Amino acid sequence: MRTPPQRGRRQGRTTSRELILGSARKLFAEHGYAATSLREIAREAGVDPAMVHHWFTGKEELFNACVELPADPAQVLGGVSETAAEVRGEALLRAILVLWDSAAQPALLALLRSAAGSRAQGALIRQVLVKRVLVRALAGLPGSQTELDRRGALVASQMIGLMVSRYLLRVEPLASAGHDELVALIGPTLQHYLTGPLPGMP
Amino acid sequence: MRTPPQRGRRQGRTTSRELILGSARKLFAEHGYAATSLREIAREAGVDPAMVHHWFTGKEELFNACVELPADPAQVLGGVSETAAEVRGEALLRAILVLWDSAAQPALLALLRSAAGSRAQGALIRQVLVKRVLVRALAGLPGSQTELDRRGALVASQMIGLMVSRYLLRVEPLASAGHDELVALIGPTLQHYLTGPLPGMP
Repeated sequence: MRTPPQRGRRQGRTTSRELILGSARKLFAEHGYAATSLREIAREAGVDPAMVHHWFTGKEELFNACVELPADPAQVLGGVSETAAEVRGEALLRAILVLWDSAAQPALLALLRSAAGSRAQGALIRQVLVKRVLVRALAGLPGSQTELDRRGALVASQMIGLMVSRYLLRVEPLASAGHDELVALIGPTLQHYLTGPLPGMP
Repeated sequence: MRTPPQRGRRQGRTTSRELILGSARKLFAEHGYAATSLREIAREAGVDPAMVHHWFTGKEELFNACVELPADPAQVLGGVSETAAEVRGEALLRAILVLWDSAAQPALLALLRSAAGSRAQGALIRQVLVKRVLVRALAGLPGSQTELDRRGALVASQMIGLMVSRYLLRVEPLASAGHDELVALIGPTLQHYLTGPLPGMP
């Protein structure tokens, strides 16, 4: 094991760690979590497999690094949490679309694929979704925890479905629609789920 | 290769083919399409691997048989196509929920997992979705093809998201909600997408 080249990393040069992360994002997105091995990632990155183990304790830590790096929910949704309740649906959708149409897309696709890949991964992603994403989308909205849980789950159902349809299955015209068009079509649904009257709720 | 036991099949006895299909549904649902081998399916079914090749030309044909058997869109959605436009959203949702909460659920989960597993499988599933499912959900509704394509994609986005949230990620309270509750919460969204006023449409 060699000492990590800390200085190079700090200065932003492309290090073996970044090469590995780039390759891992690509392969996880293309083939899914289960079907991608550390050996293949090393080969894609052009580094020795020992280098992967030098930087990451295993595939899960490497995957987490892939997911976490480009998409910290606190950053992506920080502004959303502070928007007024009556425009929260549009703000949430725009923030998520900007994220998905950024360089983070391969890592997010890998996240989706891994969530579908096994019950264990699905449970992991559900935790991220509920504890880190929905909490921020619902921040400051009125209602009991039961009501907010229901609103959050409904929002998740429409958002996940849009992401799967647009980016994974590429169903048209959603796949090639612009952000404004999607906000006009789907924003009202999200707003209804966030703050509209729901059956069985006071 | 032995001659297929046609007589036994016709009479509905559990044949090696049905054992193989049952095992394949279970393993595809648990591990996904890519991670399941014909050899593992044979082992799970308690048959020789040659028997799998005797009944099916390969994994794809076996998978198709798993998917097609319990969920022929013509049967599941035949009644939906004939419902009045103003109740089509509820009818569609109820038909899909009845299907998913039937013995077909493992095969449908396998379908979702396989759609997420690779771009090729995703494209295959998109074909099934657009050409065989949405066409029936939209049958007889007014509007240009462009408009119906848009409505269909919106319906797909909410339906897929509900299926992923409820059955794959198991997000509560959607995972344990009854059909009436889901129809009350999400039916209006589907109805809006099917027949409501959409921006940019006359």
